[in-house]
Amino acid sequence: MNDTPYLTVDVGRLDRNIHAVATRAAVAGLDLRPHAKTHKSVEIARRQLDAGAVGLTVATIGEAEAFAAAHVSGDADLFIAYPLWVTEHKGARLRTLAAATRLRVAVDSVDGANRLAAEVGDADIEVLVEVDSGQHRTGVPPEDAGTLAFAATRAGLRVVGVFTFPGHGYGPGDARRRAAEQEAAALEMAAQQLRDNGIDPIVRSGGSTPTIEYAGSDVLTEIRPGVYPFGDAQQMELGTATADDIALTAVATVVHRTGNRIVTDAGSKILGADRPAWAPGFGRLLDHPDARITSLSEHHAVIEFDDTTGDVGPLPVPGDRVRVVPNHVCTAVNLVDGVIAVTADGVEEHWPVIARGANA
Amino acid sequence: MNDTPYLTVDVGRLDRNIHAVATRAAVAGLDLRPHAKTHKSVEIARRQLDAGAVGLTVATIGEAEAFAAAHVSGDADLFIAYPLWVTEHKGARLRTLAAATRLRVAVDSVDGANRLAAEVGDADIEVLVEVDSGQHRTGVPPEDAGTLAFAATRAGLRVVGVFTFPGHGYGPGDARRRAAEQEAAALEMAAQQLRDNGIDPIVRSGGSTPTIEYAGSDVLTEIRPGVYPFGDAQQMELGTATADDIALTAVATVVHRTGNRIVTDAGSKILGADRPAWAPGFGRLLDHPDARITSLSEHHAVIEFDDTTGDVGPLPVPGDRVRVVPNHVCTAVNLVDGVIAVTADGVEEHWPVIARGANA
Repeated sequence: MNDTPYLTVDVGRLDRNIHAVATRAAVAGLDLRPHAKTHKSVEIARRQLDAGAVGLTVATIGEAEAFAAAHVSGDADLFIAYPLWVTEHKGARLRTLAAATRLRVAVDSVDGANRLAAEVGDADIEVLVEVDSGQHRTGVPPEDAGTLAFAATRAGLRVVGVFTFPGHGYGPGDARRRAAEQEAAALEMAAQQLRDNGIDPIVRSGGSTPTIEYAGSDVLTEIRPGVYPFGDAQQMELGTATADDIALTAVATVVHRTGNRIVTDAGSKILGADRPAWAPGFGRLLDHPDARITSLSEHHAVIEFDDTTGDVGPLPVPGDRVRVVPNHVCTAVNLVDGVIAVTADGVEEHWPVIARGANA
Repeated sequence: MNDTPYLTVDVGRLDRNIHAVATRAAVAGLDLRPHAKTHKSVEIARRQLDAGAVGLTVATIGEAEAFAAAHVSGDADLFIAYPLWVTEHKGARLRTLAAATRLRVAVDSVDGANRLAAEVGDADIEVLVEVDSGQHRTGVPPEDAGTLAFAATRAGLRVVGVFTFPGHGYGPGDARRRAAEQEAAALEMAAQQLRDNGIDPIVRSGGSTPTIEYAGSDVLTEIRPGVYPFGDAQQMELGTATADDIALTAVATVVHRTGNRIVTDAGSKILGADRPAWAPGFGRLLDHPDARITSLSEHHAVIEFDDTTGDVGPLPVPGDRVRVVPNHVCTAVNLVDGVIAVTADGVEEHWPVIARGANA
């Protein structure tokens, strides 16, 4: 019996989730390039590629280096979906990467494109222009994509398309549908801007787990969801995952109970502290849907059971183990060096988390 | 030049903070047992012990194992300030620890005390009873401390006192002062309950960084602050640290600017995502007090500058480096394998973070 708290993966559910999205992408005529920052796992990346993914998305050079070194497929085909500011040292790292794997990177400013061009020289690297489709984080407005793509090309870069992240689809109500519409509109306009500047927007990449169901090949060529292999409490709140879809949980021991309040040994240092305003708590208990994680310390989750409904059933007591669903699985996985994967026939395997903390 | 983002420690400020609190504890007649979960650093623990700390506080068995193995002092003297639920395996780990170092652990229930006694047998371990002084997380009500201490003693444990964590002092207004008053009242009552049950409450331990200034030896014998060597944005909001006290920052590169919005490459995977309701953002920029981190993604911090005041000065532009103060430094440190410590004469040293992710 493993000491708690630890993260565990239900491999049967994981495989089901991976195949469901692979099928959805194939039916929609879209390439699937999963974001590997979610799992940082060779075992999971290999499953995604075996199910038809065209490559992987990563967020940092360090993540790209880890997946390139792991040789998850013959040609890892990595996209660093981030507008890197490329110093001399990061440029050298990118050149080394480009020699080892097919590599694609992002730009979202003329200055950034010039930096990239100056440092990577004639390395074999493809470039996508990042477009802001409404999240207002990074990316240029779609109407500026052509100018930027043209400047990047003049600087010597090989621009092959546009991408966006519809992060504002993480919201209640019809936020997902609206974000997906804005994503398609932004990519369509940006692609046209590239054509107007003589550049063929071969790649039009979007997508996130909450917007998968709205993604279509009328505009997009590719989607980059991350969370879908595991699901998490945020996806449950958004209606994009049910409790039966959740493939990763923190196994925690109840260490305290006072009335309807219990406390577990899984806190923010294994669950992460993400809590969007629309979430009812800091995660969920997989087997107690009415429980609310009302506060989170580093090694304590305070969980309240509402006894007014009269149907919460017997409450967990100290010593019991419970399964906690993190709000945001990407940050939970980044807190551990490995997960305990449990196969359909009950065998436990240790799957390392590679590139944990590879922020640079 | 190190690739960004990374965490850096200003050793001059660190030493100043360590000595200020050591002096304050000495003047108040209190033992200082710093919480090492904050830094997980042998270099910093050694500095704290050299400045007079009587031992270290940790949160988990894994942290205790790491500090015991590092031999930070002749007698590490570790207190695991957590109501562990001791399984057979955790019991074996505690026995090994007790053979290597002076060890103190916590109980907050009769069942938990019985478990502990059953598993550690006659190992040389001291026990403190955890008391709830108002945070309503773990701990027994002070009026129940005597009953629990008596039961623990009957089970064969060596109870040497009581402790509490006044975490409800993390709040605006006079929350700190009120929490410190409740802490003292709870420890006083709990200590009397032990005496009434024939147990000498030699140790009466409390304290946190926000409540240090209110701690007195009329009731307490010991304080256990964690954050004070570094400070963080939460302490700045609470008024317990100024910008000049901040000894740990994330060095980040600006990767994007649109108007008064900039985006850096330090996101929640290096800053942590903690954000109490009373904090104005997800951290602060050390050199731009008017800037607000309005949203945080894994590798993006979106920072807004208010230009209505007219005195924000020149805004950072892409490529510039900025120093970001995490809201909660304990969770930031737990995201990296090491920090870059910069000594007063400008020498850079790599200080490993031991026990990173040691949740169990």
